[in-house]
Amino acid sequence: MNFKLISYLTARIMLIGAAMLVPPLMVSFIYHDGCHIPFLITMAVFLLLSIPGFIKPKKMHMFAKDGLMIVVLAWIAFSVVGALPFYLSREIPSYIDCLFETVSGFTTTGSSILTEIEHISKSVLFWRSFTHWIGGMGVLVFAMAIFSGREAKTTHIMRAEMPGPTLGKLASKWQFSVRILYGMYAFLTFFEFLMLLFGGMSVYDSLVHAFGTAGTGGFSVKNASIGYYQSPYIQYTITAFMLMFGINFNIYYLLLVKKFSKVRNNSELKTYFAIIITATVVIMLNIYKMSGGAELAFRRALFHVSSAVTTTGYATADFNMWPQLSKTIIFILMFVGGCAGSTGGGLKVLRVSVLVKSAFSAIRKSVSPKRVLTIKNDSRTVDEDEVYGVITYFVCYIVFMFASLIVLSLDKIDLETAITAVVTTVNNIGPGLGKMIGPAGNFHDMSVLSKIVLSIDMLAGRLELYPVLMLFMPEVWKRS
Amino acid sequence: MNFKLISYLTARIMLIGAAMLVPPLMVSFIYHDGCHIPFLITMAVFLLLSIPGFIKPKKMHMFAKDGLMIVVLAWIAFSVVGALPFYLSREIPSYIDCLFETVSGFTTTGSSILTEIEHISKSVLFWRSFTHWIGGMGVLVFAMAIFSGREAKTTHIMRAEMPGPTLGKLASKWQFSVRILYGMYAFLTFFEFLMLLFGGMSVYDSLVHAFGTAGTGGFSVKNASIGYYQSPYIQYTITAFMLMFGINFNIYYLLLVKKFSKVRNNSELKTYFAIIITATVVIMLNIYKMSGGAELAFRRALFHVSSAVTTTGYATADFNMWPQLSKTIIFILMFVGGCAGSTGGGLKVLRVSVLVKSAFSAIRKSVSPKRVLTIKNDSRTVDEDEVYGVITYFVCYIVFMFASLIVLSLDKIDLETAITAVVTTVNNIGPGLGKMIGPAGNFHDMSVLSKIVLSIDMLAGRLELYPVLMLFMPEVWKRS
Repeated sequence: MNFKLISYLTARIMLIGAAMLVPPLMVSFIYHDGCHIPFLITMAVFLLLSIPGFIKPKKMHMFAKDGLMIVVLAWIAFSVVGALPFYLSREIPSYIDCLFETVSGFTTTGSSILTEIEHISKSVLFWRSFTHWIGGMGVLVFAMAIFSGREAKTTHIMRAEMPGPTLGKLASKWQFSVRILYGMYAFLTFFEFLMLLFGGMSVYDSLVHAFGTAGTGGFSVKNASIGYYQSPYIQYTITAFMLMFGINFNIYYLLLVKKFSKVRNNSELKTYFAIIITATVVIMLNIYKMSGGAELAFRRALFHVSSAVTTTGYATADFNMWPQLSKTIIFILMFVGGCAGSTGGGLKVLRVSVLVKSAFSAIRKSVSPKRVLTIKNDSRTVDEDEVYGVITYFVCYIVFMFASLIVLSLDKIDLETAITAVVTTVNNIGPGLGKMIGPAGNFHDMSVLSKIVLSIDMLAGRLELYPVLMLFMPEVWKRS
Repeated sequence: MNFKLISYLTARIMLIGAAMLVPPLMVSFIYHDGCHIPFLITMAVFLLLSIPGFIKPKKMHMFAKDGLMIVVLAWIAFSVVGALPFYLSREIPSYIDCLFETVSGFTTTGSSILTEIEHISKSVLFWRSFTHWIGGMGVLVFAMAIFSGREAKTTHIMRAEMPGPTLGKLASKWQFSVRILYGMYAFLTFFEFLMLLFGGMSVYDSLVHAFGTAGTGGFSVKNASIGYYQSPYIQYTITAFMLMFGINFNIYYLLLVKKFSKVRNNSELKTYFAIIITATVVIMLNIYKMSGGAELAFRRALFHVSSAVTTTGYATADFNMWPQLSKTIIFILMFVGGCAGSTGGGLKVLRVSVLVKSAFSAIRKSVSPKRVLTIKNDSRTVDEDEVYGVITYFVCYIVFMFASLIVLSLDKIDLETAITAVVTTVNNIGPGLGKMIGPAGNFHDMSVLSKIVLSIDMLAGRLELYPVLMLFMPEVWKRS
């Protein structure tokens, strides 16, 4: 571990933290809600933490583990300091609750401990939703785009923070790629903002919900989430944007440079839509009787399928009241997640398709042991090491979830709540199943230990396990 | 597919089916319970089915898929015909319930649809428990030991039916190995029978419970399972034998030939006991308050840990009433299962330890991408292909459980019941969690579809997935 380099780079990223507080500060001034002091204090803390960033270390060489360490430390610092506005404004009395809410924001999970969202100050709720938008595409990738890439090898950091099994390089230079990505991200967010405004939502509501959709986060400013807005136009618009933010951003780049055939042949995209269509049709038929009419059944089914698969977590209905089949499908979609390279969490469609293909391949192998079997994606053979990487990731993911489940069971909750709490946080979705943490509930009544475990789960899920799990390996803490 | 060879060999195995009915027939005569006609009819059906076994095919060469097909067909035939005594004696009115009970018996699961066990005739209950004993070490391996091995390559069949990732060869010849295995199996069963008899159990009860323990099945002749026998001696004896039947039978062979150092260094055995001790201590502390005294808490904890980890499924208490932590541990133990080469189901300790080691290895690999990491077992490096085999098996296992979960959700049951029903049947345990299928409940009220799915799950679990899953692959059904 090159601790000097780690503290230098982590500290520099804290400058971004300070800059992030400018928008909520402005909102506070606009609405005169008296929350400017907490934001100013938080900004000052970020600036203080950035001081080591002015002492350049001698050795600038970075190993993979240094990169992972910077990522995880920066995310922890963002969460710990980013929780201060909630605490200092006294909107959330317990600091552990503030931390849970902030981790949930940055990791784009959207699980909340708030029982009465509509009583909270506008600027504080703005900050809560803004963390989704920042977390969506990765704070650190953003940082790397601003700072000079010559300072240190930054690919380790990007690799750790970018969602998905492989990091598609858009253009020849990293910094250029990142700028294109952020440009598209900002453009799509702004586009959704305009569409929602056009549907009669207020400027404030449009903005926070655009943030929540873009990051596939799911924090709303209403207790009833998107169910508050009865307009089918608004619900369909948010559905469309959830789906768009669940697509690999490379696809938009390919559309931009007019490589349409590559888009058409993208098998992950096809699988993504096949899953969404199948799940929507089944749920629609399953909830048809209890919904008032076909259109409403379709709209609710599509909305919740999109919300679950993209790991956003918005709700227009309480799916806890749905028949078990629909609930199980929502539960399974939570594992799937968005496409690789999107803002969505979960395993990612690409990984799931490799996993299902390996399962079939294992059956075929048992039938004909001598046959050489390969797994294909986009009509090319997936490298054996890649397949191995995906399945070991999956093993790690399941083992980690079981470990979390044991600790969570110390709380006074039932198995359904415990299992879905772990699944919803590790996959960065938001609501779980069961009365307590369902779309109509929240995480407020969980124990402090449970909130800490679930915060670790959210972070581990957002950073794709390894950077967080590495902290539990003793050998990582040795000086090199 | 060499269908002629398949039908020839499958038919020959049906002779074993007919022979299996002799003991329950004798029990029926002893107790004069009037159930001899159903047993005689069932025997006749097995004999009829064995007719194709007298027409020897020309081509005797067998491929892996032919072997798998014989295994799965024989198990299906045993279950379908073996269900007849329940049906013809009118002890279980619905045939699908009879089938479920028989599959549960042969696969050593122990899940029951009976609501009032104590009302059933003695010979029928004897047959029910006897299926556990037959299923325990594999019907077909037994068949191969009797028929001449020269007729066809029989290793494909043994490999498919023997539990665990690798088939340890005890002695230089297969047939000899199988005879040693069966000798030890019969000896241990008889030993348990004597020990239970000594504890004051009746001859009949001692025998059926010895069958249930030996096969790690779990069918009892009492509604309260082992809870009916309040004697600590009986409960500890059954605990000890459950644990013994969960150990790889190679270990007993090694003890027999006095290779003690090999036993001492067996890492699977160490892991097995480490899991049992840890789980027992945690559950004991967790249920201490609600149990009357330390001894009872210890006895109950050890009994249920042993019952879950060996996938037996006997109960002395309703663990549904335990705190969530204990229930979660029992739930997780259900996946673990016994050692490879034991009669226990589940993933097997060896696979679980390879999986956990791969998870840690994946984290290490992310920290130091260039390091070459290997997984060790018994102080030797596990071959990469073996590790790959274990993790793809795991992927297959999880994908299959999710698929079962979807179909099961069509039934009117909650998520906890649906999940634990799948887990308990795929891992051949018996009871699940939740009121309906917990140790105090049964599977009687499930839908016909659910019972079929769970029967497939039990068979798939017992035969380690591939032979059953292969039936769903269209290419298998092509003639070669």
